Amino acid sequence: MTIYDISKKAGVSIATVSRVINGSGKVSEKTRKKVLAVVEESGYTPNLFARGLGLNTMHIIGILCVDSSDLFLAKAVYYLEQKLYENGYGCLLCCTGYQQENKEKYMKLLLSKRVDACILVGSSLVGQTLEDSRYIQDAAKEIPVMLLNAYLNGPNLYCVLADDYQATYAAADQLYRAGKRNLLYYYDSNSYSGKEKLRGFQDAMKANGVDKKEQKTLYYSGSREDIPSMKAKLAGLHQSGVAFDGIIASDDNLALSAVKFAQSIGWKIPEEFAVIGYNNSLLAQCCEPELTTIDNHLETLCSQLTATLMDVQGGKPAASRMVFPCTLLPGGTTPALERIPEHSPKRKAASAG
Amino acid sequence: MTIYDISKKAGVSIATVSRVINGSGKVSEKTRKKVLAVVEESGYTPNLFARGLGLNTMHIIGILCVDSSDLFLAKAVYYLEQKLYENGYGCLLCCTGYQQENKEKYMKLLLSKRVDACILVGSSLVGQTLEDSRYIQDAAKEIPVMLLNAYLNGPNLYCVLADDYQATYAAADQLYRAGKRNLLYYYDSNSYSGKEKLRGFQDAMKANGVDKKEQKTLYYSGSREDIPSMKAKLAGLHQSGVAFDGIIASDDNLALSAVKFAQSIGWKIPEEFAVIGYNNSLLAQCCEPELTTIDNHLETLCSQLTATLMDVQGGKPAASRMVFPCTLLPGGTTPALERIPEHSPKRKAASAG
Repeated sequence: MTIYDISKKAGVSIATVSRVINGSGKVSEKTRKKVLAVVEESGYTPNLFARGLGLNTMHIIGILCVDSSDLFLAKAVYYLEQKLYENGYGCLLCCTGYQQENKEKYMKLLLSKRVDACILVGSSLVGQTLEDSRYIQDAAKEIPVMLLNAYLNGPNLYCVLADDYQATYAAADQLYRAGKRNLLYYYDSNSYSGKEKLRGFQDAMKANGVDKKEQKTLYYSGSREDIPSMKAKLAGLHQSGVAFDGIIASDDNLALSAVKFAQSIGWKIPEEFAVIGYNNSLLAQCCEPELTTIDNHLETLCSQLTATLMDVQGGKPAASRMVFPCTLLPGGTTPALERIPEHSPKRKAASAG
Repeated sequence: MTIYDISKKAGVSIATVSRVINGSGKVSEKTRKKVLAVVEESGYTPNLFARGLGLNTMHIIGILCVDSSDLFLAKAVYYLEQKLYENGYGCLLCCTGYQQENKEKYMKLLLSKRVDACILVGSSLVGQTLEDSRYIQDAAKEIPVMLLNAYLNGPNLYCVLADDYQATYAAADQLYRAGKRNLLYYYDSNSYSGKEKLRGFQDAMKANGVDKKEQKTLYYSGSREDIPSMKAKLAGLHQSGVAFDGIIASDDNLALSAVKFAQSIGWKIPEEFAVIGYNNSLLAQCCEPELTTIDNHLETLCSQLTATLMDVQGGKPAASRMVFPCTLLPGGTTPALERIPEHSPKRKAASAG
């Protein structure tokens, strides 16, 4: 709500609203109360007043994620907070969960707090349907909306992404060429990023002559923290007679459960069974042997997103979409692989910006 | 800064400041500008205006922690955000790191944003000296300060803690009685909570006839995410000829590194070597075998802290210190132990409140 909306709703001129807000000039007590009632009802008070007085904005950025205690999202939130603080901004943290209704409620909360912009962390916040993403596009009518590792097109929307398609393609392709002919893709998300990874796997298989009908994928729908349940899901597939000698996982948690599963039935890693995880999280180190994992350079993504946001705030031109390559980090869960050439995301960013 | 401070600094009466803030009554343009300049300089604007207008507060709580991506702290921040949101409050997240200077800067930032209260998560924010804790006591002069698993005494300070002393005492005592006579305490923090754990270990050893001179402790000062480095530290101790057949760790990360170390030199777990971790984090599950770990019921602590804060906000009586018992969760890294009797923290809370 702007000063124009308030003037309309209160049935007074903009000049009168301005006088009330600024406390300048004469306004009758009755009119003053009427205007303040509308302002109060709108819920937009503090910043409206700050702006009306020509003072600075609140310098607060809203950060939305489904769960800030998820390993990957926790890192992202931390990096963003650090980089925004360096730029003089505070972070209002919102953990929405997966329910559409709550995502929308939180977004309304952020708008009512008059944040300067908001950052959506991870692609689970972007809806599967246009309708489910409308709350994001609506928010972008009021404030800049930044998406970290998610994609949505529209005005005032800015996306900074890892190239999950390319990374998963390369991982599957290399494992196939290293002799693993029964690869399984194990995943737990149908978000934009999740779909990109799946497509990367499928295309790599196809390029190696494995038809879609013969491709093996397994979807896990439980909690990201329930390693035994992830392991049991794989054991179920194995017991049903499906053969697999390697797993590309959409997340290190799933990859670690695959290593535990293989060890529980005595398969030798990496000779008889190979595993590649995703995110280069703490779990990759915790696994024994350490996981081969895909590093999506999360800190770089967060730096770039913050830099883009600062450009937007400063009225400078800003890329609406920036995609950065990932790196495959070899660990003990795969045979010798070619390392995906190490790109320099910073250099890439400079040429993209 | 209050309306009184502003009147003093602007050299005008409180009534005049009130008229400027409320936009009521006559004030000369010169005086108005002078008052607004002081207000602007103070940096306290938005909420001051909201309050001056008799509107609601911002309904924002500041959350301070050293690093929101640490497994334990990330969970705490998530639980707090969820519980505060249920009560109609937003969370301003601040990751201070370990430098005293930055802790103080962040606290100033929170006060300038006019948060309704602040929550300090984890005891690393409380200084080792009185001087280093003064910024917390100073903040408590302006807003309620809540401490999660930390302790500091003073007006307007409220602490909700796990009984880390008792939990570590019981863990060490049980492992000793199960036959492990060369216990090592492996830790990485000298915070209040860290000291309580160490004291629990030392007292348990003493009660079992192990003099302080014979007690074994090892301090790790590196990154909490560097498992190989934690493992190397233990290997160094082993190579120097110090014998140990069991480890009580102050954190699951350290405990997991101990399991990896033992496996790397072929020690059988738990027959030849036992390990107990702390926090019941995701890493306890990731470890193979799963860690025996101490659960400090973090979600309960966060619920209780939020409930206490709401009581404080509502002007109701609130306990300045609440201590909750922990539970030992048996895993595959210890021989059969007595389970620490499962307390009901909720019931405890009711009697304490």
